[in-house]
Amino acid sequence: MSRPGASGGLGASAKRYIGQPRRRREDPRLLRGEATYVDDVDVYGQVFLSVVRSSEAHARILSVDVEEARRAPGVRLVMTADDISAVVPLEDIGYHEVYPQIDDYRHPVFASDRVRYVGQPVAAVVADTPYLAEDAANLVAITYDHLAPVLDPQEAMAEATDPLFVGLANEAVRIEKTYGDVEQAISQAAHVVRGRYDVGRHSGVPMETRGCVAEPDRGRKQLFMWGPVHTHDCQRLIAKVLGLPLADLRMKHADIGGNFGVKGGVFPEYIMVGWAALRLGRPVKWTEDRLEHMVATSHAREQIHELAAAFDSEGRILALTDEIWVNHGAFLRQAEPLCSDITVGMVPGPYRVPSYKGVLHAVVTNKTPSGAYRAPGRYECTFARERLLDQAADELDISRVEIRRRNLLTHTDLPFEPGMDICFEPYHFDSGDVVDHLEKTLASTDFSAWESEAIELRAQGRLVGNGIGILMDKAGLGMYETGAVDVDESGRVRVRTGASSMGQGIETVLAQIVGEELQIDPDLIDVVHGDTELVPEGVGSWSSRSTVLAGGAARQAALDTIEKAKRLAATMLEANVEDLVLEDGRIVVIGATNQGCSLGEIAAQWDGWSARLAGDEPGLGAKAVYVDAHMNYPYGVTLVQIEVDPATGGHTLRRFLTSTEAGCAINPMTTRGQVIGAAAQGIGGALFEEFSYDESGQPLATSFMDYLLPGAQNVPDIEFFMTEDAPTPNNPFGAKGLGEVGLIAVGAAVAGAIDDAFRDSVQTTKVPVTPENLWRRANPDADV
Amino acid sequence: MSRPGASGGLGASAKRYIGQPRRRREDPRLLRGEATYVDDVDVYGQVFLSVVRSSEAHARILSVDVEEARRAPGVRLVMTADDISAVVPLEDIGYHEVYPQIDDYRHPVFASDRVRYVGQPVAAVVADTPYLAEDAANLVAITYDHLAPVLDPQEAMAEATDPLFVGLANEAVRIEKTYGDVEQAISQAAHVVRGRYDVGRHSGVPMETRGCVAEPDRGRKQLFMWGPVHTHDCQRLIAKVLGLPLADLRMKHADIGGNFGVKGGVFPEYIMVGWAALRLGRPVKWTEDRLEHMVATSHAREQIHELAAAFDSEGRILALTDEIWVNHGAFLRQAEPLCSDITVGMVPGPYRVPSYKGVLHAVVTNKTPSGAYRAPGRYECTFARERLLDQAADELDISRVEIRRRNLLTHTDLPFEPGMDICFEPYHFDSGDVVDHLEKTLASTDFSAWESEAIELRAQGRLVGNGIGILMDKAGLGMYETGAVDVDESGRVRVRTGASSMGQGIETVLAQIVGEELQIDPDLIDVVHGDTELVPEGVGSWSSRSTVLAGGAARQAALDTIEKAKRLAATMLEANVEDLVLEDGRIVVIGATNQGCSLGEIAAQWDGWSARLAGDEPGLGAKAVYVDAHMNYPYGVTLVQIEVDPATGGHTLRRFLTSTEAGCAINPMTTRGQVIGAAAQGIGGALFEEFSYDESGQPLATSFMDYLLPGAQNVPDIEFFMTEDAPTPNNPFGAKGLGEVGLIAVGAAVAGAIDDAFRDSVQTTKVPVTPENLWRRANPDADV
Repeated sequence: MSRPGASGGLGASAKRYIGQPRRRREDPRLLRGEATYVDDVDVYGQVFLSVVRSSEAHARILSVDVEEARRAPGVRLVMTADDISAVVPLEDIGYHEVYPQIDDYRHPVFASDRVRYVGQPVAAVVADTPYLAEDAANLVAITYDHLAPVLDPQEAMAEATDPLFVGLANEAVRIEKTYGDVEQAISQAAHVVRGRYDVGRHSGVPMETRGCVAEPDRGRKQLFMWGPVHTHDCQRLIAKVLGLPLADLRMKHADIGGNFGVKGGVFPEYIMVGWAALRLGRPVKWTEDRLEHMVATSHAREQIHELAAAFDSEGRILALTDEIWVNHGAFLRQAEPLCSDITVGMVPGPYRVPSYKGVLHAVVTNKTPSGAYRAPGRYECTFARERLLDQAADELDISRVEIRRRNLLTHTDLPFEPGMDICFEPYHFDSGDVVDHLEKTLASTDFSAWESEAIELRAQGRLVGNGIGILMDKAGLGMYETGAVDVDESGRVRVRTGASSMGQGIETVLAQIVGEELQIDPDLIDVVHGDTELVPEGVGSWSSRSTVLAGGAARQAALDTIEKAKRLAATMLEANVEDLVLEDGRIVVIGATNQGCSLGEIAAQWDGWSARLAGDEPGLGAKAVYVDAHMNYPYGVTLVQIEVDPATGGHTLRRFLTSTEAGCAINPMTTRGQVIGAAAQGIGGALFEEFSYDESGQPLATSFMDYLLPGAQNVPDIEFFMTEDAPTPNNPFGAKGLGEVGLIAVGAAVAGAIDDAFRDSVQTTKVPVTPENLWRRANPDADV
Repeated sequence: MSRPGASGGLGASAKRYIGQPRRRREDPRLLRGEATYVDDVDVYGQVFLSVVRSSEAHARILSVDVEEARRAPGVRLVMTADDISAVVPLEDIGYHEVYPQIDDYRHPVFASDRVRYVGQPVAAVVADTPYLAEDAANLVAITYDHLAPVLDPQEAMAEATDPLFVGLANEAVRIEKTYGDVEQAISQAAHVVRGRYDVGRHSGVPMETRGCVAEPDRGRKQLFMWGPVHTHDCQRLIAKVLGLPLADLRMKHADIGGNFGVKGGVFPEYIMVGWAALRLGRPVKWTEDRLEHMVATSHAREQIHELAAAFDSEGRILALTDEIWVNHGAFLRQAEPLCSDITVGMVPGPYRVPSYKGVLHAVVTNKTPSGAYRAPGRYECTFARERLLDQAADELDISRVEIRRRNLLTHTDLPFEPGMDICFEPYHFDSGDVVDHLEKTLASTDFSAWESEAIELRAQGRLVGNGIGILMDKAGLGMYETGAVDVDESGRVRVRTGASSMGQGIETVLAQIVGEELQIDPDLIDVVHGDTELVPEGVGSWSSRSTVLAGGAARQAALDTIEKAKRLAATMLEANVEDLVLEDGRIVVIGATNQGCSLGEIAAQWDGWSARLAGDEPGLGAKAVYVDAHMNYPYGVTLVQIEVDPATGGHTLRRFLTSTEAGCAINPMTTRGQVIGAAAQGIGGALFEEFSYDESGQPLATSFMDYLLPGAQNVPDIEFFMTEDAPTPNNPFGAKGLGEVGLIAVGAAVAGAIDDAFRDSVQTTKVPVTPENLWRRANPDADV
């Protein structure tokens, strides 16, 4: 394994920054109130947009009367589908070719003939203040002809149900993935275990809601938009809708107060804001309020899995089948049906599954459209698969750990390539040993002590149980990223990356990577991101891809910068390039290290006036593209010990461990933070968060009074265990993407712990588990 | 001569855009009020800066009391030299090494112990509105101990005159340039002609005054400054003063409402604005008013020349000497002593001068510091030299045209390299025949008819005369420029250039150049400039350099883009690169032109998601650096026919012709516009504009009531005559820089015409010529 730095020719005395825990360089500005979140972006002369949203889940629009709103004080513009009849484009990730029908399910910017979920935009008002805009928005009068809402995906697929889109099936997409001979394996199996497992509708609810500011340059017919998180996708897609040449739409994101996937892609509001700014010739700003966030930002996770697994007499899996219904909500948006593709592809997970068949129905309903939320598909399918394994353990009378041990992938299975695509790429598990990792994890925390403790406490009549979930993630989707390194005369380094900083600490990690290669203190390295002007060919941050891909690009740019520095220094020092080496941020002559020059001195060769050309391009720096051969697949274990309070249905997470095989943690401190943060969100999805609806399709959770987030008191001290045993050969760091692993198995492990606390078979087949659910189970005879 | 486009492999049917007259693409936004001049840049939360300036020409500062100003309404900050003791840096153009003393004459941001000219900044106030800032600035109380002002450069060098800078000579710099044996030539000469010629103090007064807006990013410790015209120099120099890493100071200029050199470089006000923005953590704006512009932006031109020329009996020049006093004003700033270097180097001009000695004294006085104004040095030395030639013609009894004809450089003199540096570069006249150009020019307008017309009118008692001036310019200083071309999916092209658009039409010219190379309509090409982020290694626009250098870079980037397009298209079309050719903006297979793809289609290969890599860098485009071997030397003729009104001292320019040898005019329409615009400014300097001072050093011309600009009624219909006989071999276009030629010989030609109108010897030895001067000459016996 070639470790980073090696290719830069670093000697034994070189300073190492990769692998060191370092505090996040992003934090000082964030903690001191000096960050620029999108709502902090104020542009001189700005006016404000407010969206008029459907109050109905399903209805024909009979009329939209905007006259009173137009006459309201301070109103500049009222927009409806009559002004913008466009639809929000889907990202071109290849699905159009496979499923051409998806274009028919796209989200319109404004509803015209029909509304399909509560919160769907019908009109928008632009006025001089946010208050005047919202007041005027309330004056837009919409009359509806109500239609019966369809809320359940299986019901939506029933023959009796009317199509939600005239002439189109309610099953917008069906995805099948299969390998091996499932039928034969089942027919020969000793045991077949079946179950249905449901994951509730919840999503990311970042501290910062969405927002967007668009500033037009009337003279140059250009638009500068602040806010959207996926700058490059948004640039490309929004420019098309607005009819702008690509270079005339500049996208920049400010600091991001959390994303977790849900802010990704293009939303109708961004198009409204951009269109209004061009139309009015002045800056337009929109900041989502929390109510809007709850109904209009992407929901996620709502899935039904009907799983079956065939086992031999030793408890070894012979086949796995899953039929999945995804409640996609009213429209396909953003990267869909990507999350569905991942879901059906990741069901086998970290197990040696010799044959598999998954069928997924992505179904439209009258709920908020769903999208990507941290670990999309993996949280859901892991819950289902791990619950099925718990059930199989019970039915086969094997311990829950042991059944996993017998089926997890080990190094003898590598490379594991069963012949199935995930995201158009062959699934290819290249490095690791999940059993080995499981054993180390159990040993690290002395899991047998957890078990004996639970037995002891249950003997005292307390409801205490342990659960286990084993996860595999896919990370690094998107194949390539760009990076650039520039050194200025003062020796200061600037890294430009196509990745985005959204809380994951990518500025810190890239500074470490480039600092190690250039042998410069990472504190002297600035990282610029999220700007389509400064990084015209960037890709972005999602899918736990940035460390590997943006890191790979930044590293390559740093290496190329050193090569260039050596070329220039050779002239300056009158030496041969081959005799030069990088040492302590200087290019020096081997064996005569007092003869050398700093990177800053080399950069100063181009001083812009004296034109002392060195026969090279201006400046000291380089641009690079890094391409990964395929995704990487980190894995890990989640262990939970829960105690249920029978009096209240409340619970305490007594112990919580999450582990991961990291390959290489560039910064173990930020790795730990990311994994633990993800675990907290997993707890939310397992025990707290749900977007419930009533029968008429009205959302019941539209504030933090109804949509419960785990607070500090609900998140235990989380143990973090990490191995770096299996660096992937797929990238120069050996690193695996770790932004999502902490979340994936939490639902499964919590559910298992609850059943264990009740000494029950697999009863917990749906998350989130509510206090009411727990109380009823603890008090089966209560008559309430 | 390899003409543009040839190297792109364009066929005979290719569209030609180079050499075509095209309207300026900049104009629609400028004419529709949609331009963004710096005062149009408003940043949310901005506060305003007002400068407190010295009311004295020369005084010790006894006290600066800012207490009352600090307490004034809306005041955020009051700054003095106690806050910023920095000086304005000089550009590093090599002079520091030759004249290390120049650092001692730099302009302080704020005066501390002494003020040296009326208008020098002593303090600045930042307040919530421009009005409150100016009101509070008036409350700053400065007490002075008056000192005798020194206003004349020869007086400043007198022994009895105290040094203006303690311990330093008032002659800040002495520059000598010499070649050949002047002494011997004079000793052997048949005639020696001597004269003293003065050019008055005037300068560029663009419609738009200077301005600056600085916006800090507190969290990232970065500063974004709008306004300064020389973005890249200002970035480098201001970052040093403010202690910012280079990349953390972004400079961008908006549309520029005229520059003419006078806004170039760093001014104290820019540093104040940047410093205040960092200190206050909020945006600060400063817009110069006209009064400030008249005393605080660079003055120019004030020079005394004492010339002598030795002739043989045929009227051929044997030697030329010049002793020059430059009234530099109070400090050295910007690119100084560049203008002085050019002055002394360009005295021989377009003539075959076999030996030359020039000595220039750059002298500090108590006037506004001088700097570059369009054709710096050339206007002055051309006035002096051409007047001396007129005088020699009289003394030798040769016609004014004939004496020039005998001495001008012809193709037989090429290359003319007498062994003298100008701007650290050997003077090297590589292409042309000035006599031939003169003959063609005279023939083009039938100059003999001008002469007979004057004789006829004078015979009627009218004061009508003709004058001639012959000029040589130096253009293309700065050696290199950068350029980039990017093509987007829609086929739209963006050119990024290090040049700046300041009225010269560079956007149009670069679009023509790139359009021709890419065979794309120039209207589909956007040109981006003046932004240190988008063009990190740019140089800038001055010295008539942009068409040649920025054009060269853009052309090279376009050619490299075509090469890349062919590489990518070869894969797409399954063809060999060698079989591909550019035709009509498409890469097509030779002999099968229906097989091809547009540049946009090739660019779309990189769609950012599908990652269909072609083994190349992302995007379709290229960056290039263009380096010129040396400056180019355009030349031309100015002919003037004037009539003086003896009753009023007024005048009418009856005829006016300006000619130039262009090498290659990329856009003859904008070339003509530039040359005629320059001629109008030459008329201003010859007949209208002067920054006069009274004996105490108080400026007398601080508004357009006192500083006269030629109006539309004063600028005649100007004939423009252009030859393209002598493309320079120095660049691929053969183009010569034409931004300044129209101005250079106007003073000389007007002065000659006046003397001719009076049928006098060389009496007009100083410009500007005032109505009073003309009236007294027309009425020598008047007793007024």
